[in-house]
Amino acid sequence: MTLGCPDRTGIVAAISGFIAEIGGWITEAAYHSDPQSGWFFTRQAVRADSVDLDVDDLRRRFGEVAAQIGPDTEWTLTDTGVEKSVVLLVSRDSHCLIDLLGRAERGEFPATIRAVVGNHPDLEDLTTRFGVPFHHVPFPADGKPAAFAALQKLVDGYTPDAIVLARFMQILPADLCQEWAGRAINIHHSFLPSFVGARPYHQAFDRGVKLIGATCHYVTADLDAGPIIEQDVSRINHDYSTADMVRQGRDIETLVLSRGVRWHLEDRVLVHGRKTVVFA
Amino acid sequence: MTLGCPDRTGIVAAISGFIAEIGGWITEAAYHSDPQSGWFFTRQAVRADSVDLDVDDLRRRFGEVAAQIGPDTEWTLTDTGVEKSVVLLVSRDSHCLIDLLGRAERGEFPATIRAVVGNHPDLEDLTTRFGVPFHHVPFPADGKPAAFAALQKLVDGYTPDAIVLARFMQILPADLCQEWAGRAINIHHSFLPSFVGARPYHQAFDRGVKLIGATCHYVTADLDAGPIIEQDVSRINHDYSTADMVRQGRDIETLVLSRGVRWHLEDRVLVHGRKTVVFA
Amino acid sequence: MTLGCPDRTGIVAAISGFIAEIGGWITEAAYHSDPQSGWFFTRQAVRADSVDLDVDDLRRRFGEVAAQIGPDTEWTLTDTGVEKSVVLLVSRDSHCLIDLLGRAERGEFPATIRAVVGNHPDLEDLTTRFGVPFHHVPFPADGKPAAFAALQKLVDGYTPDAIVLARFMQILPADLCQEWAGRAINIHHSFLPSFVGARPYHQAFDRGVKLIGATCHYVTADLDAGPIIEQDVSRINHDYSTADMVRQGRDIETLVLSRGVRWHLEDRVLVHGRKTVVFA
Amino acid sequence: MTLGCPDRTGIVAAISGFIAEIGGWITEAAYHSDPQSGWFFTRQAVRADSVDLDVDDLRRRFGEVAAQIGPDTEWTLTDTGVEKSVVLLVSRDSHCLIDLLGRAERGEFPATIRAVVGNHPDLEDLTTRFGVPFHHVPFPADGKPAAFAALQKLVDGYTPDAIVLARFMQILPADLCQEWAGRAINIHHSFLPSFVGARPYHQAFDRGVKLIGATCHYVTADLDAGPIIEQDVSRINHDYSTADMVRQGRDIETLVLSRGVRWHLEDRVLVHGRKTVVFA
Repeated sequence: MTLGCPDRTGIVAAISGFIAEIGGWITEAAYHSDPQSGWFFTRQAVRADSVDLDVDDLRRRFGEVAAQIGPDTEWTLTDTGVEKSVVLLVSRDSHCLIDLLGRAERGEFPATIRAVVGNHPDLEDLTTRFGVPFHHVPFPADGKPAAFAALQKLVDGYTPDAIVLARFMQILPADLCQEWAGRAINIHHSFLPSFVGARPYHQAFDRGVKLIGATCHYVTADLDAGPIIEQDVSRINHDYSTADMVRQGRDIETLVLSRGVRWHLEDRVLVHGRKTVVFA
Repeated sequence: MTLGCPDRTGIVAAISGFIAEIGGWITEAAYHSDPQSGWFFTRQAVRADSVDLDVDDLRRRFGEVAAQIGPDTEWTLTDTGVEKSVVLLVSRDSHCLIDLLGRAERGEFPATIRAVVGNHPDLEDLTTRFGVPFHHVPFPADGKPAAFAALQKLVDGYTPDAIVLARFMQILPADLCQEWAGRAINIHHSFLPSFVGARPYHQAFDRGVKLIGATCHYVTADLDAGPIIEQDVSRINHDYSTADMVRQGRDIETLVLSRGVRWHLEDRVLVHGRKTVVFA
Repeated sequence: MTLGCPDRTGIVAAISGFIAEIGGWITEAAYHSDPQSGWFFTRQAVRADSVDLDVDDLRRRFGEVAAQIGPDTEWTLTDTGVEKSVVLLVSRDSHCLIDLLGRAERGEFPATIRAVVGNHPDLEDLTTRFGVPFHHVPFPADGKPAAFAALQKLVDGYTPDAIVLARFMQILPADLCQEWAGRAINIHHSFLPSFVGARPYHQAFDRGVKLIGATCHYVTADLDAGPIIEQDVSRINHDYSTADMVRQGRDIETLVLSRGVRWHLEDRVLVHGRKTVVFA
Repeated sequence: MTLGCPDRTGIVAAISGFIAEIGGWITEAAYHSDPQSGWFFTRQAVRADSVDLDVDDLRRRFGEVAAQIGPDTEWTLTDTGVEKSVVLLVSRDSHCLIDLLGRAERGEFPATIRAVVGNHPDLEDLTTRFGVPFHHVPFPADGKPAAFAALQKLVDGYTPDAIVLARFMQILPADLCQEWAGRAINIHHSFLPSFVGARPYHQAFDRGVKLIGATCHYVTADLDAGPIIEQDVSRINHDYSTADMVRQGRDIETLVLSRGVRWHLEDRVLVHGRKTVVFA
C-alpha cells in the first residue's frame, strides 16, 4: 500500500495501528516527510498470508483509515499476487528491448510484457523470439495523428500498468501524455536537464562534458521535463567520439530504464507535482 | 531514539502510538526488518519542541514502551541539544585529520573534537592551529603496554562518544577494543575483506586490482574484522604506482571516514552482531 | 599491433619511425612503462588503407623491428578485417549469455559467437533463438574428467580466440587452464580478492559489506587468482538479502564481463605475469 | 612537454625520434587524435637527468622540431624543477580553501599557494593559519569595476600559473577573463550544462534530479560555459533538502576542483576551442 497526504502528527500511528489490528506482518516500510510541500508519503508491504481479509475488504477498511487521516489523502493498495501488464514502444535500437525482454523472462518484474509496438518493423524478429507479439505502426510524416490514434487503440487494448518508451523516437502528443499520465515511462539518453531534445550525445560531444548519462522519467506534455524516476552517469574522456558515447551510453540507458520500470511496477514510485518519491 | 528487538507484529504501532500520544512531530523515521536474524530496528527523530516532556521523563516513558515490546529490546534516546565529544588518534598522515578538523569547525558534526592524540608529534602543529589540544604518546617497541595504558587514561578523561582512529598506525590491544566497543572507529585503506593488515596499497598493486577502496568500521579484537559502517572505491589502472594509489586513496579514506563518523555521531548506526544497520 | 619488451630509450622512436616509413595513419596509440617490472608496453591501431603492404608483409617487417628492439620482445599484429571467434560456456544463469548474444548481434564485438556449451541444457532454447548452436555436455560427479575432455574437443573445434565462462559453474582442471591460457575469460561475482570460491554473495551478506562487485579475469590454475581484466562494484545496504544481491549483482557481472570480453577481442589487454595492462 | 597541431602521419616519429636522439627517458607519454577537428595532441614527460641539455637549449631544439611539424603547432615545455605559483579567490565557504591548503601543504601540487584573496574577510583566519597571506578586497555593489581592478593588480603581482576561483561568488568581467585565459579555473556546483548560474542546488531540488554534481572549468566570458576540465556526481534522493545537497555537494566540489587544479598544474590539460584534452 502507498499513501500520500498533508503531513501532521499521528499518521504513522494511524496506519501502523490499523496494520497491527488486522495482524499484518510488515515486510517493508518506508516513510518520507517533505518539509517544503508539507506532504507525507509512505509505502508499506504486508505479507498477504498474515492478514485474514480478502483484498476488497482490506481496501475498504484501509480506505476508511485514509479518510480519517484527511480528505486530501491519496492512496493505493495493490495485490502483488495479480500480475501487471506492460507494453513497450520501440523504434530501431535493440538494447533496451532485449534487456527488458530478458529480465521479464527471468522473472525480475512482477509483470508480463504483453506486446511490443514499433514505428519501424526492425525489431519484430527479436521480439517474437521471446514469444511476445509485435505490432508495426508506421509514423509517416504526413500521417502522425492517425498513427498516434492507432497506437493508442492498440496499447489501450492491453490495459497496461506501464507503457515503456524503450528508445521510441516519436514525441507523444499532449492528449496521449494526459491519457497515459503516471503510466508512460521514457528513457532519455542524457543526464537531464542537460541536453533536452534531439541527439543528446552529439550535444554532449560538442560541450565536452566528462560524464554522459541517462534519465528515466514519466512522460508529460513538456518534452523531457516529466518527473524523474532514476538517473545515472558513466565516465568518458576526450577520446570518445559520438559513436563511442552511443555505445557506452547504451549500458547506462539500459540500466536506468530497467530500474525505473521495476520500481514503477513494484509501486515504489510516488509522484507529487513535478517530482517523485522513490522508495527503492 | 533508536531501538532494536526481536521482530513481531505491532512494534511500529506501539512506538508510533506512543509518539503520537505525546504529540511528537517525527522528522525522520527509518525501519529495518532482518529476516535472517529475526530482528527489527528503527530510528526516529522527533522535534524536541513538539513534546512537552523533558528528556528524563521522555526516557522513562519510552523505557516503559520498550519494556512492553519485549525483554530483549535495546534502545537509546539521545538529546541532540547536548553536544557530543570526539577524540582523534593519529600518526603522521594528515589528510583525515585536517578533513575532520575542517568539518568540525564548519559544524558538519553534532560534536566537538576535544583532543587529538598522536603516537608521533608530527601533527601537533596542524592540530593546534584549529584550537584543539594535541597530546603526544610515544609507542616505543618495548613499551607498548604502558603506552596504551597512558593512551586509555588520556582518552577516557574526555569521556568521548567517539574515538576515531584517523590513520592511527597502532593496533589496539583486545582489552582496549572491549573497553571502547561501539565507540572506536577505524579507517582501513582497502575494500575489506580484501587486503587485511599492513600495506594494503602494496597488496593491491601486486594483485593488479582495478579499483582501490577504503573501509570505515568499528574496532574489535579481530584485526580489520569489526562491523563495517561504510565503504567506497575509486578506479585505478595499470598506470598507477603504489605512490599514485596512496595519493588517490587519501581522498577515498577521507570521505569514507567522515561519513562513518558523522553517521555514528548522529546515531544512525545500529550494531547487531558482526554487522551494522545504517539509517543514512 | 601490441608489443611488450624490457624498457629502454628509443623504443617509441623505433616503432613510430617504422609506422611513419610505411605511411601508416595511427588512429589509436597507447603506451605504458612499468617501473617495477622494467617493462614497456604499447598498442597501436593503424588504418589498413593507409598502408600499402599486405598483412603478411607487414607482419614480417614489424617482426624485424621487434627483433631489433630486443630478443625478449613479445608482439602481435592483428588484422581487424578478419573476424574473431568466441565460444561461451554456461550453466543455468541466463543474464550474461543473453547480454553477450545481444551485443554480438548488434555488432559490438569484432567477433562471432560460434557456439555455446552448457553443462545443463536449460539455456539451449535461449541460445538457438539467436541462431547460435548449443551443445550440452553433462558433468556428472563421477565423470568430470571425461566431460572436460569432451568439452575441450568441442571447444577446440572452433579454434576460438576467446573462451568465455559466462557464469559456468565448473572449475577448469589445470591442464585445460594451461591449454587455454590467455584465451579463457571468467566472471567471478565478487570484488576479488574478496570472497574467492563458492557463493560469494552469501559471503558478502555474512560480512556485511556495503558494496558488492564482480571481477573479469583470465582463468589460471589458481582458483579466482588469474590476471584481472576489469572490476566494478555496486552499492548495497543492510536492507539487501542475498536474493537482492544476486539480482543486483547480475547487472554488474554482465557489464564487467562484456567490457572484459570486448577489450580482449580488440587486443586491448596485454598480460604480464599476474597482471594486465588494459589500453581501454 | 605538450604539443598540439593539425594531424598528419609522422608526428609521433618526429617527436619520439628527437627524444631518442637526445637520450631522453620517457616516463609518461599520451597521445590523442581528434578526428573531428583534425588535430593531434600529445604530452610527454622526460626525466631531466636523462638529458644533457639545459632547459633553454632543450626548448630551442624542441622548437625546431615543432616548427618542422607545421606552422600551426602549439607547444609548451615545462621544467618541473621550477615550482609554479597559485592564487586562490574565495568568498565565505571554507571547504575548497581548506582542502587546497591541506593538499598544498602535504605536497600534492607541484606549486605553492602564494596568496588567498577574499571578497569577504571571513576566511582570513583559516588562511593565515597555513602561513599563506590573505588579502581582503571588498566588492560593494556600486564599486565593482574598481574592486576588479584592485583584484587584478593584486593577483598579477604574483604572476600566477593558476588563479583558482575556490567558490568565489563574483562573476569576472570579460576583460579579466581574457587576461587570465587558460589560467583562471572555476568550480561550479552543478553538473554543467545543467543549472547554470545562481543557486544550482536549489535548481536541482526543484527539478527533482537524482544526482548532484560539480564541474571544474576554465573561466571564459560566457558564464559557466568555459572548457570543462573535470566533472563528477553524487547520488541523492527525495529525502535530501537543499541544505543536505549543499553539505554533500561540498565533497564533490572539493574533489573535482582539486583534481582539475592538479591536472592543470601538471600540464595535463590541453585546451582546444571549447573543449579540453586531459591526459590524467
